[in-house]
Amino acid sequence: MINAVDVIRAKRDRQRLSDEQIDWVVDAYTCGAVADEQMAALAMAILLNGMDRAETARWTRAMIASGERLSLDGVGRPLVDKHSTGGVGDKITLPLAPLVAACGAAVPQLSGRGLGHTGGTLDKLESIPGWRAQLSTSEITAQLRDVGAVICATTSGLAPADRKLYALRDVTGTVESVPLIASSIMSKKIAEGADALVLDVKVGSGAFMKTLDAARELASALVGIGAEHGLRTTAVLTDMAVPLGRAVGNAVEVAEAVEVLQGGGPADVVELTVVLAREMLHLVGLPDADPAQVLASGRAYETWCRMIAAQGGDPEAELPQAAHRHVVEAPDDGVLQSLDAYAVGIAAWRLGAGRSRKEDPVQHAAGILCLARPGDRVERGQPLLELRTDTPDAVPAALAALDGGWRIGDGVPPTQPLVIDFLR
Amino acid sequence: MINAVDVIRAKRDRQRLSDEQIDWVVDAYTCGAVADEQMAALAMAILLNGMDRAETARWTRAMIASGERLSLDGVGRPLVDKHSTGGVGDKITLPLAPLVAACGAAVPQLSGRGLGHTGGTLDKLESIPGWRAQLSTSEITAQLRDVGAVICATTSGLAPADRKLYALRDVTGTVESVPLIASSIMSKKIAEGADALVLDVKVGSGAFMKTLDAARELASALVGIGAEHGLRTTAVLTDMAVPLGRAVGNAVEVAEAVEVLQGGGPADVVELTVVLAREMLHLVGLPDADPAQVLASGRAYETWCRMIAAQGGDPEAELPQAAHRHVVEAPDDGVLQSLDAYAVGIAAWRLGAGRSRKEDPVQHAAGILCLARPGDRVERGQPLLELRTDTPDAVPAALAALDGGWRIGDGVPPTQPLVIDFLR
Repeated sequence: MINAVDVIRAKRDRQRLSDEQIDWVVDAYTCGAVADEQMAALAMAILLNGMDRAETARWTRAMIASGERLSLDGVGRPLVDKHSTGGVGDKITLPLAPLVAACGAAVPQLSGRGLGHTGGTLDKLESIPGWRAQLSTSEITAQLRDVGAVICATTSGLAPADRKLYALRDVTGTVESVPLIASSIMSKKIAEGADALVLDVKVGSGAFMKTLDAARELASALVGIGAEHGLRTTAVLTDMAVPLGRAVGNAVEVAEAVEVLQGGGPADVVELTVVLAREMLHLVGLPDADPAQVLASGRAYETWCRMIAAQGGDPEAELPQAAHRHVVEAPDDGVLQSLDAYAVGIAAWRLGAGRSRKEDPVQHAAGILCLARPGDRVERGQPLLELRTDTPDAVPAALAALDGGWRIGDGVPPTQPLVIDFLR
Repeated sequence: MINAVDVIRAKRDRQRLSDEQIDWVVDAYTCGAVADEQMAALAMAILLNGMDRAETARWTRAMIASGERLSLDGVGRPLVDKHSTGGVGDKITLPLAPLVAACGAAVPQLSGRGLGHTGGTLDKLESIPGWRAQLSTSEITAQLRDVGAVICATTSGLAPADRKLYALRDVTGTVESVPLIASSIMSKKIAEGADALVLDVKVGSGAFMKTLDAARELASALVGIGAEHGLRTTAVLTDMAVPLGRAVGNAVEVAEAVEVLQGGGPADVVELTVVLAREMLHLVGLPDADPAQVLASGRAYETWCRMIAAQGGDPEAELPQAAHRHVVEAPDDGVLQSLDAYAVGIAAWRLGAGRSRKEDPVQHAAGILCLARPGDRVERGQPLLELRTDTPDAVPAALAALDGGWRIGDGVPPTQPLVIDFLR
């Protein structure tokens, strides 16, 4: 007879949890037989004493088993999904999903809202007039068949254990556990029922993982869980020391995504979109597709317009504009040496682009435009950053967050590659 | 501004907690502003990452500050208390409190009930007809002044944070933390307001601490907290590999205590009672008292009778007798090589002497008499153990617990001293 205290004590004393213990404790927690305080103690013991690869895979399986699996039969295309661990200015999902769809695969992208400084894909898309995030399973299936791409809210039936556990970890200082992060991400993705998954594991000041070692550990755990569940999975380690692209916010990121889909946009956004698209297509047996060419041809933009329209949005509508703009100018001539992703993320959040509590609304028009990138030569008085908000009272706090977040000097700053490594 | 997640993360990341963090989190938990799941995560982090001596002393102070302190002014004698970490057959408090009182000190012994296999002093005394555990503070003070000894229930106003935290630790696998055990014991004892304290820290199979190293660590933590709070404290490390005395249970232990108070009783019970009495008297400046002589003279027994009568009990009344007795006989001639305290404790518990849940009643007459001790020569058919219970259905489970708990062989088994060490 398994009981909660024995399971907690086993992990506390550095023992492996058995399959039976994991299945029991996740199920009992989901239905309320294991109390929050017991799961909190177990989560802390897991954070401090770890779980090995097999335990983590089983934990993931138990979280999937707590709910339903999406049934996406009848789509008629290989299904491939993408997940980012979150970064500043990370709007890659927006051009990526229609691009991969235009190349012949189907992309069921079930997303969440943002919390903290990294923003959420749904918040960005909701700045498009009319667009709605909630779809039924049959609407998802139909849109995947007809358009090939859907970005929508996670249905509440997927991995309910994860939703309950995530809320608990958030208030008990137990978020930063690689096995728990990895199983949280993968349980939802596996329950979606895709054939393959590409993970964008971000590393740097603007990411959850600040060091390459930590990011590699998480990437390895994610790929390991994918392998244990028969899901073709690649993790791509990418840099998040500098914001992605120019735009950080909601509507401003949608506008930048549209630029990319129309063949323009910042080089780093284009590069990462194409790299991830190529990996996704490779995983589902479409290696001959040429996403760079499809992007340039405008076919990805056509798919974007159909994807937005299918969810009630008007792809041609003007996006919301902020009532107030504040420009930060270069105080000297020189070369921009650094632009810290975390500082920009916090500043955009304070301007209203993000939320503090999950009940809060976001300002769709708030955000920051980064008008110069590290390595760019700038002249005194030249605009470096444009802050946008509907609540100008927020500007001083945003400027405080940016203080020290960028620097002008002489010489060329060291550059790092955007795409660091692939783990397959 | 202190918040729960920051405190949890600090300890999780092996930082020292500040005085302000400790004061805040204990107070906020007591009043409900910190949730059970947050304190559970913190308790697990403390269990795994520890607290140093200064943190533990502050934690204790915060738990004391959560409630009231007993005011025992007007007793007119030095106040000295004793606490045992719990053992099998540990009835020492019963003869000790009246003995020390008969030597001139006052002993305010606020006790708890038993949970698990080690029994509780109040459960034992409640087998005396008429005796009551609940006293008001003024009754305690009057009895200390008039009789010199009181054994009664802890008042609910002392260290309420500890009561709440102990219940939480019990269900979250976080009992076995030396800083939390030590602060739990000491917060209640310091709040009692005695001048000095002798701690009987038991080590061996029947004790909470199974190894000498673990017992020494706890003893050191306890003495450290006492020193930080200006309480004269001695910890005595004593053996708990074998039950103390012959009797294990409730009424049977009271009967054995009375034997000791009347100048008889098992040698180990007499020895430990006198050793602890001498240490208690030494700590309060009465080093010339001779507890061995006072015990032999019958004066301690007189004090016992007055102490029991003051709380409504009839010291001359017959104690309850169990309806059913079962004798375990020696299967061979030889020497009893071992008698495992834990096995005997569990067996007595199963016979009804202890409780599984704190709401359960105990059987006052249930228990075990150990009729031979390790080193005793025994003959085939000679009674070794006498099991007593009102519920004979419990006998097979008790016998199962005793299986392997004793052994007859040749030669003299190694003996260990009862009193191992003093930490002052």
